[in-house]
Amino acid sequence: MTSGNKAGGAGRDPPANSLWGGRFTGSPAEIMGRINASIDFDKRLYAEDIAGSKAHCAMLVAQRILSPEDGAAIAAGLDQIRSEIESGSFAYRAEREDIHMNIEARLTELIGPAAGRLHTARSRNDQVATDLRLWVRGAIERLDALMQELQRALIDRAETEAATVMPGYTHLQIAQPVTFGHHLMAYVEMIGRDRGRLADCRRRLNQSPLGAAALAGTSFPIDRHATAAALGFDGPAANSIMPQKRNPDAAELVRAKTGRLNGSLIALLTVMKGLPLAYGKDMQEDKIPVFEAADALELCLAATTGMVQDMKPDRARLRAAAERGFSTATDLADWLVRAIGLPFRRAHRTAGMIVKRAEVCGCTLAELPLDELQSVEPAITPAVYDVLNPDRSVATRSSFGGTAPERVRAAIAEARKRFLE
Amino acid sequence: MTSGNKAGGAGRDPPANSLWGGRFTGSPAEIMGRINASIDFDKRLYAEDIAGSKAHCAMLVAQRILSPEDGAAIAAGLDQIRSEIESGSFAYRAEREDIHMNIEARLTELIGPAAGRLHTARSRNDQVATDLRLWVRGAIERLDALMQELQRALIDRAETEAATVMPGYTHLQIAQPVTFGHHLMAYVEMIGRDRGRLADCRRRLNQSPLGAAALAGTSFPIDRHATAAALGFDGPAANSIMPQKRNPDAAELVRAKTGRLNGSLIALLTVMKGLPLAYGKDMQEDKIPVFEAADALELCLAATTGMVQDMKPDRARLRAAAERGFSTATDLADWLVRAIGLPFRRAHRTAGMIVKRAEVCGCTLAELPLDELQSVEPAITPAVYDVLNPDRSVATRSSFGGTAPERVRAAIAEARKRFLE
Amino acid sequence: MTSGNKAGGAGRDPPANSLWGGRFTGSPAEIMGRINASIDFDKRLYAEDIAGSKAHCAMLVAQRILSPEDGAAIAAGLDQIRSEIESGSFAYRAEREDIHMNIEARLTELIGPAAGRLHTARSRNDQVATDLRLWVRGAIERLDALMQELQRALIDRAETEAATVMPGYTHLQIAQPVTFGHHLMAYVEMIGRDRGRLADCRRRLNQSPLGAAALAGTSFPIDRHATAAALGFDGPAANSIMPQKRNPDAAELVRAKTGRLNGSLIALLTVMKGLPLAYGKDMQEDKIPVFEAADALELCLAATTGMVQDMKPDRARLRAAAERGFSTATDLADWLVRAIGLPFRRAHRTAGMIVKRAEVCGCTLAELPLDELQSVEPAITPAVYDVLNPDRSVATRSSFGGTAPERVRAAIAEARKRFLE
Amino acid sequence: MTSGNKAGGAGRDPPANSLWGGRFTGSPAEIMGRINASIDFDKRLYAEDIAGSKAHCAMLVAQRILSPEDGAAIAAGLDQIRSEIESGSFAYRAEREDIHMNIEARLTELIGPAAGRLHTARSRNDQVATDLRLWVRGAIERLDALMQELQRALIDRAETEAATVMPGYTHLQIAQPVTFGHHLMAYVEMIGRDRGRLADCRRRLNQSPLGAAALAGTSFPIDRHATAAALGFDGPAANSIMPQKRNPDAAELVRAKTGRLNGSLIALLTVMKGLPLAYGKDMQEDKIPVFEAADALELCLAATTGMVQDMKPDRARLRAAAERGFSTATDLADWLVRAIGLPFRRAHRTAGMIVKRAEVCGCTLAELPLDELQSVEPAITPAVYDVLNPDRSVATRSSFGGTAPERVRAAIAEARKRFLE
Repeated sequence: MTSGNKAGGAGRDPPANSLWGGRFTGSPAEIMGRINASIDFDKRLYAEDIAGSKAHCAMLVAQRILSPEDGAAIAAGLDQIRSEIESGSFAYRAEREDIHMNIEARLTELIGPAAGRLHTARSRNDQVATDLRLWVRGAIERLDALMQELQRALIDRAETEAATVMPGYTHLQIAQPVTFGHHLMAYVEMIGRDRGRLADCRRRLNQSPLGAAALAGTSFPIDRHATAAALGFDGPAANSIMPQKRNPDAAELVRAKTGRLNGSLIALLTVMKGLPLAYGKDMQEDKIPVFEAADALELCLAATTGMVQDMKPDRARLRAAAERGFSTATDLADWLVRAIGLPFRRAHRTAGMIVKRAEVCGCTLAELPLDELQSVEPAITPAVYDVLNPDRSVATRSSFGGTAPERVRAAIAEARKRFLE
Repeated sequence: MTSGNKAGGAGRDPPANSLWGGRFTGSPAEIMGRINASIDFDKRLYAEDIAGSKAHCAMLVAQRILSPEDGAAIAAGLDQIRSEIESGSFAYRAEREDIHMNIEARLTELIGPAAGRLHTARSRNDQVATDLRLWVRGAIERLDALMQELQRALIDRAETEAATVMPGYTHLQIAQPVTFGHHLMAYVEMIGRDRGRLADCRRRLNQSPLGAAALAGTSFPIDRHATAAALGFDGPAANSIMPQKRNPDAAELVRAKTGRLNGSLIALLTVMKGLPLAYGKDMQEDKIPVFEAADALELCLAATTGMVQDMKPDRARLRAAAERGFSTATDLADWLVRAIGLPFRRAHRTAGMIVKRAEVCGCTLAELPLDELQSVEPAITPAVYDVLNPDRSVATRSSFGGTAPERVRAAIAEARKRFLE
Repeated sequence: MTSGNKAGGAGRDPPANSLWGGRFTGSPAEIMGRINASIDFDKRLYAEDIAGSKAHCAMLVAQRILSPEDGAAIAAGLDQIRSEIESGSFAYRAEREDIHMNIEARLTELIGPAAGRLHTARSRNDQVATDLRLWVRGAIERLDALMQELQRALIDRAETEAATVMPGYTHLQIAQPVTFGHHLMAYVEMIGRDRGRLADCRRRLNQSPLGAAALAGTSFPIDRHATAAALGFDGPAANSIMPQKRNPDAAELVRAKTGRLNGSLIALLTVMKGLPLAYGKDMQEDKIPVFEAADALELCLAATTGMVQDMKPDRARLRAAAERGFSTATDLADWLVRAIGLPFRRAHRTAGMIVKRAEVCGCTLAELPLDELQSVEPAITPAVYDVLNPDRSVATRSSFGGTAPERVRAAIAEARKRFLE
Repeated sequence: MTSGNKAGGAGRDPPANSLWGGRFTGSPAEIMGRINASIDFDKRLYAEDIAGSKAHCAMLVAQRILSPEDGAAIAAGLDQIRSEIESGSFAYRAEREDIHMNIEARLTELIGPAAGRLHTARSRNDQVATDLRLWVRGAIERLDALMQELQRALIDRAETEAATVMPGYTHLQIAQPVTFGHHLMAYVEMIGRDRGRLADCRRRLNQSPLGAAALAGTSFPIDRHATAAALGFDGPAANSIMPQKRNPDAAELVRAKTGRLNGSLIALLTVMKGLPLAYGKDMQEDKIPVFEAADALELCLAATTGMVQDMKPDRARLRAAAERGFSTATDLADWLVRAIGLPFRRAHRTAGMIVKRAEVCGCTLAELPLDELQSVEPAITPAVYDVLNPDRSVATRSSFGGTAPERVRAAIAEARKRFLE
């Protein structure tokens, strides 16, 4: 805050020629840092992040992707970080942006370059998703316990008041006598339904995204079932992906219908808010958003089904697009880890340098001559070309939930059984 | 303001000095009718309303609350109304406000006063709630079928494209090659989760509110399990009630936290809307509303549990309040139906006239002398006093989910088993 | 899934194996038509659409872009369409999708190909925007009149009740005596503030988008001030554009903050909803969303200012991108209207055919040889090349609010005066 | 529920049998304190609270309601508190709940009982409202400055890029060439409209609620114009009140329409969120919520006008209700300040004790014998009865915006001029 702000405004002349106006006396870089940094709120995920990393580390060791020595060092380092955080001695640094980088950077300080191997066969994306799921699962468990306490309090009270007569109201007018115990039991039922909703939600979210990797699955022989079990998940989530699409007209309209659905939801929530729990004419208004939402959803589903059936992918163009844009750079980095043993972060820097070479040459990664590759990293062998081709890249992503055609065909067979039979 | 609407609305001159402004050329009564009438949208509930009424009617006959002859006439009348609606010959009338009154009034035209007996041991409240649940259940089934069709289309397409290579994007930049089949399967999973949500919702709503009656349960020997089964519900809903409360400080704050929760929900929905389905920094913002909502909810639950534990009901005052306000007027009407055989609507009119007498006398219903009661309805006998006392009234409300102390105690025992064990 | 919808929907058996599920018995094309068609709700814009078209037509005649004969035919045709709509004899057709195409197609039936000239120097985009603004302006005027009526009713009543004493409540408890007149006058003030909001909104929206054209302004010598005046606008809107952007990290975070702002708004609206209008502890919760929204907004503004200052457009790449993609196809169509006199719709079809030729040849529009152009439309002369070059295209878009550099420089000078002095 | 929280929260064992579940290890009183306390977020209002108090204090001195000595001590104490807060040495205490009580309690520590006189002729309600308005006004000023900076950055950049050609897109396809400067100027216009909205909002809120007092105005001869001027407001807000109402059917429906309006708002905001700023079919969906909101609002306004015109207040009953409930307790407290010179807080405690006497006696305040009054506070004289009668109470509330009949009549005359002419 500025030091001004006197009477509500009189004392706060904006600094005459400040580039950044009012409150922002820092440099542009500081402001960008501030909008980027999430450490202020995501530090609440520390326990989940460390638990997830330890499970991932143990699996990498079991799958012989990581040596037992590195695994032990990582696990000990993570335990120490957890102690530091819980004892209040951990120094969070905003320029490390988020909880994940704060922990990773501290791990490097503690155990050196071995820390870099922890991120093998994992993406930031599935790490964050795993942490948040673990946190939400914990929150659900805390809420459920609190709701049960509330039910217990209500039931105990209802027992004492089972025969206490009181007036029942509608429209703020006395309607009929009821017992106070009966009245209280209505809340017990409502809370019971809410607990049911939480339990359903817990069941649905309790699938592990860990190891799904950014987009396509990973080429390392990871065991996603093992990490899922270690973290108390019911199993790994089936599809890794975050897909995208071009937007024809009907798809834009379906997207716009989100507005109708959110609007209907808020309409319903607003109608119900603050009502005395007795019949009011207000409730007449609840039907309109329900009908609107159902209609919009039915129409969208039918239209989307039609779009999928009528869609004609231009396979040649898709393949050509996949060859441009250095889309196998991640495969290259994975190969540098797997075949040459570079730590994860260094492998990514190396891959980045090779991409720049290709940009300068105006060619794809697969077209770069071997000596160009070796001028960046001498240990590279001709075997690298195996992973620079998109088809080959895709074929290697055969981890559970991965993008490899045979994996996709298995997922299809499974999905027919789960959803269509 | 300007005197008109020149360019955009030249053709719709508002009536010069209309009391009601712009578009509202009708009388005040017409405007009130318009804001009251729900027939325009709730006529979609006609099939559910008729199905619910037929199930209620069959149960009343089985329980000997209604004669077989009346039951047969009502069922035939309802079938005819359904035919009229589906053939387009039914004349909806806005002054009958809603679909329920439109059907009831038409039934009276078709079969005479017996129509009035259909509403015995049922309130408008639980009738509307039943209709809407049936409609929502049907909508869930239609949506589920449409979602399954969409999954089928996606899976079929994914099979054809299992080996089609395409670029995967993050931040609108090419990231890694993926297969188009893999990409499509991500949607199959998402829709699978949505179908799971619908199934959970269907299970939770599939309990019959029919016969819960307005507030307190009913004194007629109804069979709520029978109507629930007839309508395909899993059973009757356990508590009838719509309770109310005085608002101390903490309760007002809990009420206000609804704002925080709705706000967090919309924040989350807004962040996710319109994103390309690949990682974006946007997703960093999803944690704040999740944390905020969980924190607010945990605090509210703990505070509410405390309020329940500390609550000290003033039993004498509650009982006195229940004696004022003619709270046993519904019991009186029910007695007039049950003991004297008046049709439902006429019984309510009679009870209304008796309430007016008591207002004039400045006494409670139980204090009205018998001759006053008989001057309104000569068939009334001294037995009526049994139901005019709140304690007695409450004791008779022993239908499933009712407010009678022994029924409440049974509900408590049941709830301990369901929620606290 | 259950096999049906027994009680609630027994009468609506879904067609057994319908491709489209439940309610959608029509063909895929019909479903697509349904999601595309807006005629059901946008027909309310008919009066505004016709008023806007008549103003545009009169201006085209005055600017000698349209002959007086065509102008007269168009105006008469539009008047007749208006009469048809208001008398109920107009046949809306869903396959014509929206009110604009319904009117345009009917105009063609009535006056033949001259109808096609009406759309010269106007885009569907600014036509729709104009119609909606006119409608909203009319709605504001109707609402303002209704609010004034409500104030009148309140003031009259307050006068009668100026000395009527009543209890004032806080927290639903009696607090202090107040006069009923005083109480009513509080609403008069609130409505006065609402009328002020409407008046501000009216002032801000009352600028004409007509003639802004799709993206860039138009090369026809239109007079946007004339159409604005004819439609009762205060003037033309200053910038035509609908711009777009690539998304770096900070921009994605700014986009995500929309969630925070919408969430804060709903939080505030939800807190206030349904409160008795006296002090409640609820109001304590109103500060959090206000603070959150202000903080988020301040941070976003500072970060965005920084992004603009640091932005380094790659001018060569932007220009190259503008040459690809046949971006001067609209210029070509305009030239065909202006130089050869083709009606608007036919000119667009011709330009479309030429674009297909260029695609086949694998060249830009400017690279197509003259004989290729003339094989599509023999009347084309070499002068056409003047408009096929992006720089030249841009330079011709010099209508008010257009994209021509000198027009942009004028807008900059004007903006400095309006916003920075 | 599962027995724990294994992976995500292993380090946070919930206390085994805690009454309050998971995170809430404190006593019930601590939890209640937590939901009550707003100091965590409302401490941001400190500067506004002190500025408002100083203006109020100066006015009380000028109006001879406060002695110059007390006024000087209060002003000096407030200045010191401000220094303590800004230097970081102020000790906030959660059990003092909010910023207002934290400052008031500290002032008492600093200057003794004179601190209690500061709250004379002011309610917590108008104090909080004043603080928040001052804060929002400051936020508007900061936002406006930041927006101007952003416009400056955009305009400067647009100047450099006035002739830079780039492709314009619609539906993510290249449409027409535009200049980058033109593109940037579109944002300058949008921000200009936003600044206009802020300016309108500032104008509307810049009226001082200070001295409006809780409900009815105050009987002290305060000068609300003076405090308004001292705080930079344009004048005092015209009506103090927070009214309330009984809810007949139509009013409940009007209340429920809030849902429709909030829903329409969110629908519109959701449709627009995340769209590339070029035409998309999405925008077709914006019309539905606009039409719905306008329709709902017009109907509500007409119905409410009708309710006001048809309303028949039961004057005798209103007056009787005002006599019950000790509604003149505030008048009594004010009289104790004004006539006997008790400090504000002590006067309120004394009035509270007298109310308890009346409750025990079962009489109204006006019916309490003088000796009963004097047994609580011996300095009370018979003149007190003047203020214990509701009519008399109302008549004394003649401050600007107050509830006294002649003040209401003046407000009516004023309102006719402002709103109906």
